[in-house]
Amino acid sequence: MKAYEIRDGFGLDKLVSCERPDPTPGPFQVRVRVKATSLNQRDLMMVEGRYNPRQKLPLIPNSDGAGVVDAVGPGVTRVKPGDRVMGLFSQAWMGGEPSRAAQTSTLGGPLDGALADTMVLHEDGVIATPAYLSDEEAATLPCAALTAWSALVTYGGVKAGDTVLVQGTGGVSIFGLQIARMLGARVILTSSRDDKLEKARALGAHELINYVTTPDWDKAARALTGGVGVDHVVEVGGAGTFEKSLRAVRIGGTVSVIGVLSGGAGTVPLTPVLMQNLRVQGILVGHRQGFEALNRALTLHGVHPVVDRVFPFAEARAAFEYLKSGAHFGKVVIRVG
Amino acid sequence: MKAYEIRDGFGLDKLVSCERPDPTPGPFQVRVRVKATSLNQRDLMMVEGRYNPRQKLPLIPNSDGAGVVDAVGPGVTRVKPGDRVMGLFSQAWMGGEPSRAAQTSTLGGPLDGALADTMVLHEDGVIATPAYLSDEEAATLPCAALTAWSALVTYGGVKAGDTVLVQGTGGVSIFGLQIARMLGARVILTSSRDDKLEKARALGAHELINYVTTPDWDKAARALTGGVGVDHVVEVGGAGTFEKSLRAVRIGGTVSVIGVLSGGAGTVPLTPVLMQNLRVQGILVGHRQGFEALNRALTLHGVHPVVDRVFPFAEARAAFEYLKSGAHFGKVVIRVG
Amino acid sequence: MKAYEIRDGFGLDKLVSCERPDPTPGPFQVRVRVKATSLNQRDLMMVEGRYNPRQKLPLIPNSDGAGVVDAVGPGVTRVKPGDRVMGLFSQAWMGGEPSRAAQTSTLGGPLDGALADTMVLHEDGVIATPAYLSDEEAATLPCAALTAWSALVTYGGVKAGDTVLVQGTGGVSIFGLQIARMLGARVILTSSRDDKLEKARALGAHELINYVTTPDWDKAARALTGGVGVDHVVEVGGAGTFEKSLRAVRIGGTVSVIGVLSGGAGTVPLTPVLMQNLRVQGILVGHRQGFEALNRALTLHGVHPVVDRVFPFAEARAAFEYLKSGAHFGKVVIRVG
Amino acid sequence: MKAYEIRDGFGLDKLVSCERPDPTPGPFQVRVRVKATSLNQRDLMMVEGRYNPRQKLPLIPNSDGAGVVDAVGPGVTRVKPGDRVMGLFSQAWMGGEPSRAAQTSTLGGPLDGALADTMVLHEDGVIATPAYLSDEEAATLPCAALTAWSALVTYGGVKAGDTVLVQGTGGVSIFGLQIARMLGARVILTSSRDDKLEKARALGAHELINYVTTPDWDKAARALTGGVGVDHVVEVGGAGTFEKSLRAVRIGGTVSVIGVLSGGAGTVPLTPVLMQNLRVQGILVGHRQGFEALNRALTLHGVHPVVDRVFPFAEARAAFEYLKSGAHFGKVVIRVG
Repeated sequence: MKAYEIRDGFGLDKLVSCERPDPTPGPFQVRVRVKATSLNQRDLMMVEGRYNPRQKLPLIPNSDGAGVVDAVGPGVTRVKPGDRVMGLFSQAWMGGEPSRAAQTSTLGGPLDGALADTMVLHEDGVIATPAYLSDEEAATLPCAALTAWSALVTYGGVKAGDTVLVQGTGGVSIFGLQIARMLGARVILTSSRDDKLEKARALGAHELINYVTTPDWDKAARALTGGVGVDHVVEVGGAGTFEKSLRAVRIGGTVSVIGVLSGGAGTVPLTPVLMQNLRVQGILVGHRQGFEALNRALTLHGVHPVVDRVFPFAEARAAFEYLKSGAHFGKVVIRVG
Repeated sequence: MKAYEIRDGFGLDKLVSCERPDPTPGPFQVRVRVKATSLNQRDLMMVEGRYNPRQKLPLIPNSDGAGVVDAVGPGVTRVKPGDRVMGLFSQAWMGGEPSRAAQTSTLGGPLDGALADTMVLHEDGVIATPAYLSDEEAATLPCAALTAWSALVTYGGVKAGDTVLVQGTGGVSIFGLQIARMLGARVILTSSRDDKLEKARALGAHELINYVTTPDWDKAARALTGGVGVDHVVEVGGAGTFEKSLRAVRIGGTVSVIGVLSGGAGTVPLTPVLMQNLRVQGILVGHRQGFEALNRALTLHGVHPVVDRVFPFAEARAAFEYLKSGAHFGKVVIRVG
Repeated sequence: MKAYEIRDGFGLDKLVSCERPDPTPGPFQVRVRVKATSLNQRDLMMVEGRYNPRQKLPLIPNSDGAGVVDAVGPGVTRVKPGDRVMGLFSQAWMGGEPSRAAQTSTLGGPLDGALADTMVLHEDGVIATPAYLSDEEAATLPCAALTAWSALVTYGGVKAGDTVLVQGTGGVSIFGLQIARMLGARVILTSSRDDKLEKARALGAHELINYVTTPDWDKAARALTGGVGVDHVVEVGGAGTFEKSLRAVRIGGTVSVIGVLSGGAGTVPLTPVLMQNLRVQGILVGHRQGFEALNRALTLHGVHPVVDRVFPFAEARAAFEYLKSGAHFGKVVIRVG
Repeated sequence: MKAYEIRDGFGLDKLVSCERPDPTPGPFQVRVRVKATSLNQRDLMMVEGRYNPRQKLPLIPNSDGAGVVDAVGPGVTRVKPGDRVMGLFSQAWMGGEPSRAAQTSTLGGPLDGALADTMVLHEDGVIATPAYLSDEEAATLPCAALTAWSALVTYGGVKAGDTVLVQGTGGVSIFGLQIARMLGARVILTSSRDDKLEKARALGAHELINYVTTPDWDKAARALTGGVGVDHVVEVGGAGTFEKSLRAVRIGGTVSVIGVLSGGAGTVPLTPVLMQNLRVQGILVGHRQGFEALNRALTLHGVHPVVDRVFPFAEARAAFEYLKSGAHFGKVVIRVG
């Protein structure tokens, strides 16, 4: 099998192509021929050693892959050769509450991931690809889409008529927009670029705020809700935006922490959390039952993930650099098979 | 003030027009000039003495009214003369859990209701009418729409991609269809008449079942979900349909009991409730916080209630008879003011 | 291995001892030397063909077993030989929502169960026995204790100060009493016998009702709550008691349906479900995450299951007959190993 | 009536006794002769101008008071003269979700509070005092006890067997200990003083950590749970302790933010919130329905609030100074009537 691995240290220059022996699925395992993989900020951080500096190397990065089952081991009943599947971000989180096992069974670190033409996974660790989606589209779902779903649905309980604020136009945020729309919510989206705001409007965002020209986007968001505040913020920025998120949300509202793009620590005020009866909910992607529900919703609504650009397998490093540039809108994908 | 009251016994022939002294709002009270009232099965049952045979008479029936505030008593701060408002079904249920007070403060029995040109209510017992709705439309919301909202949202947690089954094309069921659509759910609707099914399709129902030509509608519904069963049934029929509802729903699913059209008792099996881990949830309309959320959702989506027919105030009795005939699709309204 | 199996038809006389080849654990499987098994109404119904007349035979009955791991197959990491374990009622329900797989992976039918000196189970299908419990005590937990926990905690959210009514003194009801006490709830217990009521008092029941001398036990229960009604009824009787349970519970309260001792169908009224905003929740035992939480609670409180009587393996049939007699208080156990 | 008011600026020296005209209850209002009031950190911060520097003066401080109704205005039905009552912290939060009205109707600022021999409140704003409690004891409940209840029950869902960590031995923390015990949870309590730890042990704390001699109390707490982490932290310290709280809690656990004793802002890390799927929940005291449930629980368990010291009305300022010293264990009370 062909793959990329992080070897001899972290950094994009340490991401190198490699050959490994073709694996055979053991009992209850399936072999997936990967057709496409998508990139998440987590994958970039992993390659650069910022996600988990203690990660053992070599490691095949990328949590998200979609492909076709071509062999199954003894005892497998859930899938069969020829089935189109995606890998679960967390191979051991089937439903209910998170656990250490859920946290330590994630693809693309600590376990080898999807930047490879082959993966061998437990049959419980793969899920059927909705028939109407291409492999490139399916490859965007396991981390970013499920994270947005967990934030808004599993932990958020967003309902029709609620106002949801999403930050920027990266993978999770655009899925946040699409999912919030399916739920019947009103969506406010922020970005630094007017062209991206216009794209978001075309995808259904109700209200748009350019946070460069409107640095007090929290006040603007609050004004858009008649001074009440939004019901839910999907926070991707970290400490850099968190304080404003706390000010944008209504009494009793929720801020889902799903990323720390602008840094994980900083001077963060707790007083508004207390005084406004807020909930701050960390989201570590999600479980299989959530993914199944997400797929049902996407399929019913015929929603297509927004794929910004597809790179060939040979240009994996360029794909990471493109993600790092922040020029993308939606998801960056690598075609594998 | 002019009104209809149930007097000298129950029955449609005991529903008579009357004059009462024009009321003055006391402290924290508002006087509403009623413009329209809608009819619910409950109102019909009340008039006929089937809802609560011990109800004291005379009683002004109808829980649902919409109109304009024309006077306020001392201390009122929430509304002012000229505001368009609707009355709450339960005058004392502001939020959270139901209580005896919630149950015994309902308009149209035991308290006087909205089949009158004037109501005096506590300021907490009225809620702002969404600006885009006519009074006739607004008059349909307090009981039927809030019941459907409570079933699907407050108690049901229906999410995008879920399948909801609604029975028939009466007021609650059509609101159930409209609300389920706002939530992003898939809707299966049953009716005895193909023309009504077609109207429901135009309103967004995904799947239609004529339960006359398909008496095993439970199996048909289950087949429409790949054999899994639907997630939620909004049960309006009572004992006559309940058993089939239990068979239509998936393992772990929910049946909301919101009406007992075909009778409140009968041979009802408990075994499927147990063996399928089902939830059966009675819905007694809902609270003010739910109504506020409902209004936000309706407004965002620009949903218009389905008003089947509007009767003049002088023909109130004919309106009840029309409701009783079952010919309606959606809501029957009486224009008052 | 030695076992009992239901063979050549249903009935206690068709429960016969047998020898089967000693099984070897496959990948991810463990072999448990069973030390004790307990009896549930479900097991009795299974033997008699009343639970599932289509169950394939021969079948080793009993969902509940506790023992010691003596061999593990390839890949097992969760347990090791020498570990004391209990089998999960549902071998495939790890957490979250129930599913068809959860429903069809239950021990003692359709899968072979614990009335045997050996079981081979997936490593996920066994759970560590709390160290302070004997095997006989542990063998009582998988079905009855987890059912009561699911009813009161997972689905019930019972909190300190709530009033819980449990019916009778069978396995689930006594666990219901013990668990409700751990949760800080007030417990009302009904029984037909004063000596059993006194035993229940010694276990912590606050209020006792003899339903023979007080056939209107629903009114008595309501009176004990100042006329408000109890918060939660753990319903074990089925149609015979269900109607009274609906009358005993408060507005907005919950009736958990966990058994159908007195029959699964009958004239059951839906009107109170509707008018009192009640929740009726079927409970199909529960999931592994719930079992883990139950064990933590039992261990913290040092609660010992109430074992009424222990039969030797050779007298398995007598144990079933004893259960059938209804003379027991708490659990009936068979010592196996 | 006699009272203390903050006048001519903030500070303990600006807290002066005063005479005001004896008030008459208006419609739906009741007059309470206050017998006792307790002090919260919030009250001290209010007097010192640290809670809300824009608070209008003069203001009668203190949110918590208990006494006897001696007059009722027109329309009052919930209480009658002679009833023993407590005032609600938030006069307008009856149940369900918080709102601006809930936030702005709090006693002791912005509304006049309980450091007075008389209060006039809406009948919905008072709640019956459990008969077994003295007025001094009852005066401790409205803010501190309800806050702990909201954190652990309403928003926390703590169940038997869970581990709860409470910080220190102030009012909320001791109520947290008592309530967690009623819920069947295991309690870890931290303090800087061994004598206070011993007092906490006598009240039922299972595990004690002196955070002076064990500055890494988060690791100690984690070790006490076998490395898993505690389920719930009741955070009173603010930024000074928050980071350690995040490290003490398990994956998927909850940190309730109920106070900011050591400052409301600081370098707070968001990464663990994200990576551990944590929930951080701000608690703004709570609603009437929660208070009613709290009272039921306290009454069932016969729990007495821990009153550290009772000051006479004439020594109100000394009471605040005593609270400020931090020498107390439990609640500081002022006898009023």
